[in-house]
Amino acid sequence: MTEADFIAALRTLPLHPAARALADDVALLGGMIVTTDTLVEGIHFLPDDPAADVAWKLVATNLSDLAAKGSTPIGVLLNYPLSDAAWDRGFLKGLGDVLAAHDCPLIGGDTVSLPAGAPRVLTVTAFGQLSPAPPRSGALAGDRLWVTGTIGDAGAGLAIARGEAGPATLLARYRRPTPRLAEGRRIARSAHAMMDVSDGLLIDAQRMAAASGVAVTIDLARVPLSADYLAWSGDPIAAATAGDDYELLFAAAPAFVPTMRATMIGRFSDGAGLTLTNDGAPTPLPARLGFDHGTAAP
Amino acid sequence: MTEADFIAALRTLPLHPAARALADDVALLGGMIVTTDTLVEGIHFLPDDPAADVAWKLVATNLSDLAAKGSTPIGVLLNYPLSDAAWDRGFLKGLGDVLAAHDCPLIGGDTVSLPAGAPRVLTVTAFGQLSPAPPRSGALAGDRLWVTGTIGDAGAGLAIARGEAGPATLLARYRRPTPRLAEGRRIARSAHAMMDVSDGLLIDAQRMAAASGVAVTIDLARVPLSADYLAWSGDPIAAATAGDDYELLFAAAPAFVPTMRATMIGRFSDGAGLTLTNDGAPTPLPARLGFDHGTAAP
Repeated sequence: MTEADFIAALRTLPLHPAARALADDVALLGGMIVTTDTLVEGIHFLPDDPAADVAWKLVATNLSDLAAKGSTPIGVLLNYPLSDAAWDRGFLKGLGDVLAAHDCPLIGGDTVSLPAGAPRVLTVTAFGQLSPAPPRSGALAGDRLWVTGTIGDAGAGLAIARGEAGPATLLARYRRPTPRLAEGRRIARSAHAMMDVSDGLLIDAQRMAAASGVAVTIDLARVPLSADYLAWSGDPIAAATAGDDYELLFAAAPAFVPTMRATMIGRFSDGAGLTLTNDGAPTPLPARLGFDHGTAAP
Repeated sequence: MTEADFIAALRTLPLHPAARALADDVALLGGMIVTTDTLVEGIHFLPDDPAADVAWKLVATNLSDLAAKGSTPIGVLLNYPLSDAAWDRGFLKGLGDVLAAHDCPLIGGDTVSLPAGAPRVLTVTAFGQLSPAPPRSGALAGDRLWVTGTIGDAGAGLAIARGEAGPATLLARYRRPTPRLAEGRRIARSAHAMMDVSDGLLIDAQRMAAASGVAVTIDLARVPLSADYLAWSGDPIAAATAGDDYELLFAAAPAFVPTMRATMIGRFSDGAGLTLTNDGAPTPLPARLGFDHGTAAP
């Protein structure tokens, strides 16, 4: 079953009002923003990724969902599969690092054992302070599409982690993503819609447009690429379809003026679907827009 | 690393006050009781357990932690690994059943894919209304130890699920445990300490005594066994060391009079550790008190 089919089936069950009809990455509950993300070894991280980096990424991906709502972390729950002592110790070190870096305490969790040789599956649930929380579904025709930071660095980092040559800065973007918490707090005051880029810029922008009931056009030439990425490959399609960036993607009125590092990359219009241009000229969509859970491996 | 060592290491990280020093099964956050439990295929359930029953058990084990605090469910988050469509459909059916049976809506969650052949790892996080929430650590010397319902039925059910002969009633106790929510609400008003029996009566009682800084003595002859269990084997040691009962274990003052089905099985005293008697006569502890995560398979 695909993720979309499964979520559609979940929508037929009794839903809490906080669920926002399962159309968003967070719930609003108990005066808090609540979000949960699971990472799977072999899917979301590599078996030889250092345990400390896996801990960092696990917490950072959840805090990134809080960032996309303009929320400040309150704390996290951890569901952890015990394994060999060296991996567990590495994980604890990275967990301490990422919690301290984001002033985010541990609230509790659960530890389990796994059958021998099973891939690790780790879950964090993060709680954040109540915030403006722009939904995924709020983009309006006429809004501009913006993204923070640079795109594609983490995708390059994944290739480097798999053995390609490349700089440590790109590898670090894959292994230790930065949740854009400060940026999110500022953007949330004026954004109509916001989400983080986890599965790929194109697929995530398409999802925002679909949830909002509008069309979106992205100009590839505007997609912000880092100097490191330009030196490594510079391919904008690869950048825009790789996941794991954890930058913030948001819709704002034409008058929006950013007070943080953000780039206007497209616009929303009446209609449906995703269209690409390159410096204004129409250009075909790639066959794969990003990572779609339940249909293919990354 | 054992579960105890891992949790000890977590205690050196920044902890939220809601964490109760990681000494309990729940956190108190945002005016709610919060708990999370992970089930692993091959550890907490069998690969050929029906998917609908796995869904039931996943939610019921979390609601059981709310029951042990006297709390009423508000809703649940689900972290779900997509797999084959038939399993997913079965799971959705059981999920609908268990949510409806306990008037508990879905709040949100996350879906992921797993590498081919990987055992399923499923997490639910449950939220409940604020309640008296007796801690695991509140037992006093002189308190009596009580347990609701009957013990050992789920352990027998596991053996039956693995191929032994036995009645469907015992199998159902393993596959579709009942969270003791109504009982928990009544007990929570007067219990000094409470937890659910998930890893085995003896190991869980030992944990309650250790958390409370007292000793506990359990009389095996008093452990409540069902008529089905007595007919199936009747072994009280097997019953008291099998897990998955999800009955409520609680400490109450000598004057406590139950208003629900509960049995007084022991008492707390000054000192430390677990002692067994059988109709008052000392009897040796079994080598294995229950399921200890991180040290052995079940």
